[in-house]
Amino acid sequence: MKKIVALSLAIAFLTTGCVSKKVVTKPVEVKVHKAHWGYVGEYSPEHWGDMKEEYKMCKLGKNQSPVNLTDFKDPFMYPLKLKYSTGSTEFINNGHTVQVNFKEGSELYIDKKVYKLKQFHFHTPSENRLYEKSFPMEAHLVHATDSGELAVVAVMFSGGFNDNPFLAKFISKLPLTKGAKNNLVKENLNAFDMMPDDKNYYRFNGSLTTPPCSEGVLWLVLKNPVPISENQLNAFRKVLGNNNRPIQPKNARAFLK
Amino acid sequence: MKKIVALSLAIAFLTTGCVSKKVVTKPVEVKVHKAHWGYVGEYSPEHWGDMKEEYKMCKLGKNQSPVNLTDFKDPFMYPLKLKYSTGSTEFINNGHTVQVNFKEGSELYIDKKVYKLKQFHFHTPSENRLYEKSFPMEAHLVHATDSGELAVVAVMFSGGFNDNPFLAKFISKLPLTKGAKNNLVKENLNAFDMMPDDKNYYRFNGSLTTPPCSEGVLWLVLKNPVPISENQLNAFRKVLGNNNRPIQPKNARAFLK
Repeated sequence: MKKIVALSLAIAFLTTGCVSKKVVTKPVEVKVHKAHWGYVGEYSPEHWGDMKEEYKMCKLGKNQSPVNLTDFKDPFMYPLKLKYSTGSTEFINNGHTVQVNFKEGSELYIDKKVYKLKQFHFHTPSENRLYEKSFPMEAHLVHATDSGELAVVAVMFSGGFNDNPFLAKFISKLPLTKGAKNNLVKENLNAFDMMPDDKNYYRFNGSLTTPPCSEGVLWLVLKNPVPISENQLNAFRKVLGNNNRPIQPKNARAFLK
Repeated sequence: MKKIVALSLAIAFLTTGCVSKKVVTKPVEVKVHKAHWGYVGEYSPEHWGDMKEEYKMCKLGKNQSPVNLTDFKDPFMYPLKLKYSTGSTEFINNGHTVQVNFKEGSELYIDKKVYKLKQFHFHTPSENRLYEKSFPMEAHLVHATDSGELAVVAVMFSGGFNDNPFLAKFISKLPLTKGAKNNLVKENLNAFDMMPDDKNYYRFNGSLTTPPCSEGVLWLVLKNPVPISENQLNAFRKVLGNNNRPIQPKNARAFLK
């Protein structure tokens, strides 16, 4: 596989180089057009890596997310150390997901580093799987160190009868269309309230699950799901559709539990 | 190395095909020139990622080798399962290292996969470090599954007074210059004999340590070094010079012990 991948790259590169003098505008047009990555049809995940130079890790990477979490190594795992506070600013729809942005003040401490919560957003159905099991929704709490290293805490949602009280606080503010943005300052959310009481987690080394699929992302997937009602789920599904990237190969990685 | 050769052949072929009507020799000249990666000056490791499109993982990758092995997770690690037999074929100097090639018959079993020993080669000084410690030499036993997944078992050499009996079997056949090749069929080496008795290992997810720096390589670094005499070390150093890539960042990886 490695050989074939490298080879096709070489072909792509050489082919492009070879026609550059003849066609001038076409590649630029193609770039803008092709930046519209998505989850279906010609812009679906299997094409991301070919759409833009910056997206190449989507197909070259050997440490991509999401993954099917199974076959774990079992070291001692420190309890998740979080110091979160309220601080939601806005709820935006970027055309790929709906996302709650946060101001500074919520932090995750791991591997002697400080990761600051930037935002959380949603995928329906879940992107990662736990022992093959898919969940109806998954939230990704995206953190970054001051030097730009990323850590994502993932929370699974499991369908049930009762409304999730945390989601209930802001679900009426769901931004329904691409570009829509609703203020969430007054709601003053604390992302800690979205997590289950038991914060045991799986750990793996992965990537962004959307282009540019950058690697070196620390993934911490909480083992226990939180509930979501059918009504709430339908509200999210209506906006998100299916925005889950397919499962990626484990390759040489170890998954820790 | 086979891979690199195959790749440059493919490039030569494609380049010729692509520009055959206009320019025939020029692109070939440039390619050949730029393929001369090394360890010093303008072709040193910090430039590998810019030298060729196919080498871009050298700078883009977030899971590169070598690394400084420290700050471990501590899961249960299965004993290294090896079924090795004799089968050395030749000792080659490819301009970057000296390498003993093997015919089929030596296998490593891990993660429910079968990795077949292809070759081992040497770096002076060591590429990986154990708790910051560098060793005077490191051997890399390169294995591949039938589908091309790679696993490298690394053996550290520690300087001492006595000759290493395994190296003594074939050190007189060191291929001294680039392109040199000596037959090792009669020596009938078993790579198992290069390893220490205690085969406990560190594990991490890394890359090739030379261009194209492909990732997804499973690294198993034996914790215990084997001895090498000053004379033997000098013989290797004389041929290899310094062929160690600098330590790469750990990023989101876990090192297991």
